[in-house]
Amino acid sequence: MPREQIAIVGTGLVGASWALVLARANHAVRLYDLSPDIAERALIDCRHDLERMADRQLLDEPVDEILARMTVTPSLEAAVDGACYVQESVREDLVIKTEISRRIDACMASDAIVGSSTSGFPSSKFTSELAHRSRFLVVHPVNPPHLVPVVEIVPAPWTDSHVVESVKELMYAAGQQPVLITREIDGFILNRLQGALLDEAWRLYTAGYASLSDIDATVSHGLGRRWCFVGPFETIDLNSVDGISGYAHHLAPMYERIANSRPDVEPWAKDAVFRADSERRSALPLEDMRQRQKWRDEKLLDFLQLIRSNQ
Amino acid sequence: MPREQIAIVGTGLVGASWALVLARANHAVRLYDLSPDIAERALIDCRHDLERMADRQLLDEPVDEILARMTVTPSLEAAVDGACYVQESVREDLVIKTEISRRIDACMASDAIVGSSTSGFPSSKFTSELAHRSRFLVVHPVNPPHLVPVVEIVPAPWTDSHVVESVKELMYAAGQQPVLITREIDGFILNRLQGALLDEAWRLYTAGYASLSDIDATVSHGLGRRWCFVGPFETIDLNSVDGISGYAHHLAPMYERIANSRPDVEPWAKDAVFRADSERRSALPLEDMRQRQKWRDEKLLDFLQLIRSNQ
Repeated sequence: MPREQIAIVGTGLVGASWALVLARANHAVRLYDLSPDIAERALIDCRHDLERMADRQLLDEPVDEILARMTVTPSLEAAVDGACYVQESVREDLVIKTEISRRIDACMASDAIVGSSTSGFPSSKFTSELAHRSRFLVVHPVNPPHLVPVVEIVPAPWTDSHVVESVKELMYAAGQQPVLITREIDGFILNRLQGALLDEAWRLYTAGYASLSDIDATVSHGLGRRWCFVGPFETIDLNSVDGISGYAHHLAPMYERIANSRPDVEPWAKDAVFRADSERRSALPLEDMRQRQKWRDEKLLDFLQLIRSNQ
Repeated sequence: MPREQIAIVGTGLVGASWALVLARANHAVRLYDLSPDIAERALIDCRHDLERMADRQLLDEPVDEILARMTVTPSLEAAVDGACYVQESVREDLVIKTEISRRIDACMASDAIVGSSTSGFPSSKFTSELAHRSRFLVVHPVNPPHLVPVVEIVPAPWTDSHVVESVKELMYAAGQQPVLITREIDGFILNRLQGALLDEAWRLYTAGYASLSDIDATVSHGLGRRWCFVGPFETIDLNSVDGISGYAHHLAPMYERIANSRPDVEPWAKDAVFRADSERRSALPLEDMRQRQKWRDEKLLDFLQLIRSNQ
């Protein structure tokens, strides 16, 4: 017996991966997309992705049993009817988000919860007028959630705290890693951290301190090797015999000097982006992009397998 | 026959790991430390670390053959005599770095190269007066280099460009990942990137947007999962159908907004560090620190094994 009824609204890459994650967690999942073709396509993509996971012993049951819990529905109302949770993943456009949220609000059960996959908008921007606005929040995954488990949970000022707790439990139980952003902030946490590192990477590249590929290698063969197992705070905690306070005592002055000596160039400057684009396209022509994305996804599966084999 | 004669000056944790890396690469390695006990201890640590690598099929020859290429020498002069490369890893103190560099300069061959493991000082601060100053540069590893391969190569203004190329080749051939910092800058690249992310992490924590453990999880279950395989530039390049230029076109405005809306708190503030320390010590008492560090090192070995098995 499936645990709960769940609706996926918007079944592009992100929505399809959500369907996989939630059906795998034994929920009955109804998929709805404005375009029925895209919803049907999502089922095919889910089968493909599930088969790749099965090849690596990452599933606890046969692929067909998971797929049997997914159904495409012809209307939003049919998808949302009886659902205790709705994951909305429509296009990143405030007008579209506002409109779909209004439609969900009109047909949802009063105790249902609606999470939006938006990375760009705090939910207060598109839920303020809704009858059930206390049941709406941001549930932002990394794309795609079946390969990278973190999920940012961002309540609006009016989101019920029990809603936040319920979504955290739902996500934990589905094998994801929920993190709570206690109040709305532009970029939430993940993109703020990524942005801080990228801004500095752009400055160093633009000012000519290192090549694009050497900056990438500094992370992929250096910082990233630790950060995939322990976060940035635990990294520095483990790097000092007296922990994070000892580390801060010794090294905060260096980090202050660094912050005060940023190369005096704008990050994301157009000419630097143009130059970076040329370098990337020499290293990876656009026609090979899909293949490299597949390679990256295989690496992410390798990593999931590594984690699972050590549990 | 060993390839080259190499001297390790300063054989603490970093120096011992360098000895391992360079002996594994078939060089004859002489270890010197001011304290002979520490040099002898380094050999024991190397055996222990090599055995853990052998357990995971990470070595191409028996542990004893690698150890047979390491010798403790009683004097700096004996270590440096005939060495084509000297890796200096003494304590991070400008007076000590200056003094040991002067002593190496006095006994080195004129065509030898001296790399310093310093993370804190550009080599121009302690090599300006040396006879062979064109042969000195920074060769900064992540600690320990046998577990994390990146090495920052930072020439001083007077470092010979052939020296830079030779060190890059030496490091590549030893299985490390050299990255070139074209001119000196405080924190080089790795610590500047780490510092940018840490500064933002501290701001978010201090302003109460998320808990320490949730910020850590956002990296270890999110950003770090990609960054251990592809760097930050390739990550964004692969995240847009038209590559890094398309990504910048769509998302540079968001990152600019983020940069302009940083929480108005100082990173590394003393009270925040104090609070973070309490949280970390609740999660991991100081007496369990060594065990967790070992766990982290096991994970880094897991990762090396994963990379190697897929080559």
